[in-house]
Amino acid sequence: MKFVEGKHVVYSFAPDMQAVLTVDDGDIVVFGSNDCFFQQVQSNNDVLDRIDHERLNPATGPVFVKGAKPGDLLKVDIMAIDVLVDQGVTAVVAGEGSVKDEVEHNIVRVIPIVDGAAEYLGLRIPLKPMIGVIGVAPSDADGPCPTNTPYKHGGNMDTHDIRKGSTLYLPVRQEGALFALGDCHAIMGDGEACFTGLEVPAQVTVRLSVVKDTVSNWPILETETETMIIASAPTLEEATQKSVSQAVGALAKVLNCMWEEAYILASLVVDVRISQVVDPLMTVRAVVPKTIATTEQILNALK
Amino acid sequence: MKFVEGKHVVYSFAPDMQAVLTVDDGDIVVFGSNDCFFQQVQSNNDVLDRIDHERLNPATGPVFVKGAKPGDLLKVDIMAIDVLVDQGVTAVVAGEGSVKDEVEHNIVRVIPIVDGAAEYLGLRIPLKPMIGVIGVAPSDADGPCPTNTPYKHGGNMDTHDIRKGSTLYLPVRQEGALFALGDCHAIMGDGEACFTGLEVPAQVTVRLSVVKDTVSNWPILETETETMIIASAPTLEEATQKSVSQAVGALAKVLNCMWEEAYILASLVVDVRISQVVDPLMTVRAVVPKTIATTEQILNALK
Repeated sequence: MKFVEGKHVVYSFAPDMQAVLTVDDGDIVVFGSNDCFFQQVQSNNDVLDRIDHERLNPATGPVFVKGAKPGDLLKVDIMAIDVLVDQGVTAVVAGEGSVKDEVEHNIVRVIPIVDGAAEYLGLRIPLKPMIGVIGVAPSDADGPCPTNTPYKHGGNMDTHDIRKGSTLYLPVRQEGALFALGDCHAIMGDGEACFTGLEVPAQVTVRLSVVKDTVSNWPILETETETMIIASAPTLEEATQKSVSQAVGALAKVLNCMWEEAYILASLVVDVRISQVVDPLMTVRAVVPKTIATTEQILNALK
Repeated sequence: MKFVEGKHVVYSFAPDMQAVLTVDDGDIVVFGSNDCFFQQVQSNNDVLDRIDHERLNPATGPVFVKGAKPGDLLKVDIMAIDVLVDQGVTAVVAGEGSVKDEVEHNIVRVIPIVDGAAEYLGLRIPLKPMIGVIGVAPSDADGPCPTNTPYKHGGNMDTHDIRKGSTLYLPVRQEGALFALGDCHAIMGDGEACFTGLEVPAQVTVRLSVVKDTVSNWPILETETETMIIASAPTLEEATQKSVSQAVGALAKVLNCMWEEAYILASLVVDVRISQVVDPLMTVRAVVPKTIATTEQILNALK
């Protein structure tokens, strides 16, 4: 088991970022992740305007994975997301979120976590921990991607299916992949309506392995029952187009049919789901049930 | 039990449309619904360019419900959607759907239905029948709404949770509500990626009742476990804003908290889901779990 402490962070997924740890293909690595505010917000009286904005959205890493080369996928098995704190942070900021024009008061709410649930407004809401920021170094052409932004390299995808038991496949663009993660949420709904989840530092355990010679435009997520193509773009419509396009292309290859026939199939069985609407780019996932095509079949279609 | 035959159709939800049947508050009504092509497409060789485009998206009705007045909700309990045909129709048209630019061939695929499943590309896909077009007469200000378009009156919402066992609450804008429905899909994924579901005529059984003095901007859907605010707008972002705004307003009243505190709650527990991205307006639903607030509580917040 190898460890990366939470003090080793980047604020940008850059093509040339410097690894803080090198691991072998198949190694298990534990990351100390920070919350999106780098733990600068601890009470309802803290004011977001007064914290250090140079320290927002830290991602722990990066880790160099031996054998990972451009044209491969980095396979990330999410083995555990341990929330070891007894509170999480949320906030509303005027001009942010899905209903930005109705915000009258900037507020912070620090929410207690008791026995696996958040206690808020008299409700007990069970935790469902997820990873908000997770990615690899982008291509030289895509250039440095700030950690607050999602794109082809992963990044701030804020997709709540990126949780314990899921496997994320990230397109490797640089030697060693250069993997980093952070910004865990103890709870978040599809959309992340107000612009924060329940923000927590966490200890994240993953297995990192290399899938050779498999080229994807976008991150691919495998859950128990589904395979998701996660795409990000300036609008939800563009993100939908990109995620559905890759799903249809893969289905046409798997089923050996016309592209248009696969497009019809997608209309019947693929769910287009919103991940988040509050980051610099919008994130959407096209969800293919494993009863239609397995993740292995979809990955083989990318070889 | 009362019946409306499928020959009684409208192509526009108009403020002044003429009822073909009058029923009492609480009556059960069976509708003969037509598919979106009015059954003009029956084989893979049919060409959409050559069918009568004046007969697309017919909605059966309208029905006048005694006692329904502007400022009420029409409660529609969906008791059955019986698909009595042995095939459904799908189509791809260049320039339509979520990936419109990649379509090279306009195709029709008529798909057999055998023992409760569609048989397509070697797959068996279980039917999950839903109602695509369902609504009431709009306000005078909103004017006639073509049946291919979703808006505040309902219409072409293409939301697959509008199925047997769900209850839809539609904002009454005209005396008697003037209710109509059509465009059932035997199967459809969130998004309706290619622009058709598995289009079928169906026999739809609903109970129509009046919820007095309850004003909603948008249709509200109740399923076994969730309450959904369904909003439609030119972009998915605007539809998200409208559906989340109404959900947050209701949650603030139910939980007697600040609007901003409810906005935070929505970010944690409300899922924003895409219904469809292929009609003249985009449709999104904000989904509130009943464990957070019951449908009754949300409706009471609108009184």
